[in-house]
Amino acid sequence: MKLAHNARIAFQGERGAFSEEAALKLTGANTKLVPRPTFEAAFSAISEGVADYILAPIENSLAGSVHRSFDLLVESDLHIIGEVIIPIAHNLIALPGARVNDLAVVESHPVALAQCEQFFIAHPAIKRVAAEDTAGSVRDMMKLGDPKRGAIASRRAAEIYGATILAEHLEDDRENYTRFLLLAPKSYEAATAEVADKISLVFECQHVPGALYHALAPFARRNINMMKIESRPMRGKPWQYRFHLDLQASAREPEVAAAVAELEKLSAQFRILGSYKAAETAHDKSISDTERSR
Amino acid sequence: MKLAHNARIAFQGERGAFSEEAALKLTGANTKLVPRPTFEAAFSAISEGVADYILAPIENSLAGSVHRSFDLLVESDLHIIGEVIIPIAHNLIALPGARVNDLAVVESHPVALAQCEQFFIAHPAIKRVAAEDTAGSVRDMMKLGDPKRGAIASRRAAEIYGATILAEHLEDDRENYTRFLLLAPKSYEAATAEVADKISLVFECQHVPGALYHALAPFARRNINMMKIESRPMRGKPWQYRFHLDLQASAREPEVAAAVAELEKLSAQFRILGSYKAAETAHDKSISDTERSR
Repeated sequence: MKLAHNARIAFQGERGAFSEEAALKLTGANTKLVPRPTFEAAFSAISEGVADYILAPIENSLAGSVHRSFDLLVESDLHIIGEVIIPIAHNLIALPGARVNDLAVVESHPVALAQCEQFFIAHPAIKRVAAEDTAGSVRDMMKLGDPKRGAIASRRAAEIYGATILAEHLEDDRENYTRFLLLAPKSYEAATAEVADKISLVFECQHVPGALYHALAPFARRNINMMKIESRPMRGKPWQYRFHLDLQASAREPEVAAAVAELEKLSAQFRILGSYKAAETAHDKSISDTERSR
Repeated sequence: MKLAHNARIAFQGERGAFSEEAALKLTGANTKLVPRPTFEAAFSAISEGVADYILAPIENSLAGSVHRSFDLLVESDLHIIGEVIIPIAHNLIALPGARVNDLAVVESHPVALAQCEQFFIAHPAIKRVAAEDTAGSVRDMMKLGDPKRGAIASRRAAEIYGATILAEHLEDDRENYTRFLLLAPKSYEAATAEVADKISLVFECQHVPGALYHALAPFARRNINMMKIESRPMRGKPWQYRFHLDLQASAREPEVAAAVAELEKLSAQFRILGSYKAAETAHDKSISDTERSR
């Protein structure tokens, strides 16, 4: 999608993070990427005036929903204006000249480590160490200059920090994709409304038997496809939940608008998080897109 | 609940973990606690012959579901036979004699760190460092003997490792509870059937519009209360989900059995994970229980 030239996109992580790759895929090379150390810092980048957009990982096809992004999105008044899916390929990265047999420690984000289980089973002498993020572990490794340390991260991270890739595709499962949302202040919403074919909304039902069932009825009756449902705990109300729905639907269709209005009436709380163009979900397509862009 | 004398209960973490506190609350002091370094190691403890039961955290009232436990439970053939809820109170723990102003680093599990945001905002000079688990960070701190290091963990962890509590209730939100499941080989199931008032099950719908809505109908029509729904990604089928339901219902009631059978018929995959006695959810009750047991 087309953003203004030099639009600033904040993301959590270091240069070389998967979020950076996702931003490039979605918006092209015309934008300025703003790395932020934490999810909180990424989400506050617009209000602090250092970014125009935020790109946040929302779901991985193996690990599931990224809870922190769901919660920070709801706490903010940001709007989803786009999404993108990228394949996650993990690389074993080390200092130039280092060999796999030299490694005593391999560092990465805990989710990345968990997705490379087979590698660690095959190399029981290598200790896995949890780090804040994938690309940051490559940067730290280069800074320390210790050939006994390795990292698991993207090809991009290895390139940015001048490290060597010792092995590609460390991930146990190739069907490994992460979906990211592009967030903007509400005023940007209109820009994508024309091609929008997906709606994300969040609501709280009444706390009675059958409440969720009745909340889904407006969509089921109209054959509107629900792509995802996610429940998140409500702060201060233990074991009560708010629900996030993704619908395969255009908000401009009267039937869809009627269904959404019906849910809004049933809900104790309700908010449309965005109406935007769904990312391509064809997996092979995503992979070849990335290969091509290298 | 009553388990055999010296029954061995495996849990993820070190001695002093919140799981250990939960095990004591659920089964009393008669059991033998078996700490295991990872979730994977905890879940394989029965098949390895080192434990009779497993106690696994399944949900925190602020952070939400513990994905890893959901997935490992489904991958196993274990059965839920009980559950327990404990309040999570975080303590700032350091070497005996250390003071808050000495601390340069505070280590703990990332979820614990995130739940003590206000403390870190009030002490910007203290760096937060992610560790594998809460109690393990206390043990490591004691081993290193560095008065500049602190940890966030349970009172129990401080006591076990001989550390000092510098501040109590570091958690931002007192309404902080974790729910744990007691898991056993299937043969144990009968033991709790009589008092069971909760059913957990997992299913996969057909991949068609309205599938989840229709899956919930058997319960909604009979006014059976759904306590929780959780969706988890299906391995090898990106953006498709299996659903976990918790029902407030006794499997021995014919209406409940009929509803469950109806869902089973609608599902591509279906399994009852357990029928067991629900934990007390009254929050003050849980807190006073713990206070009393000290």
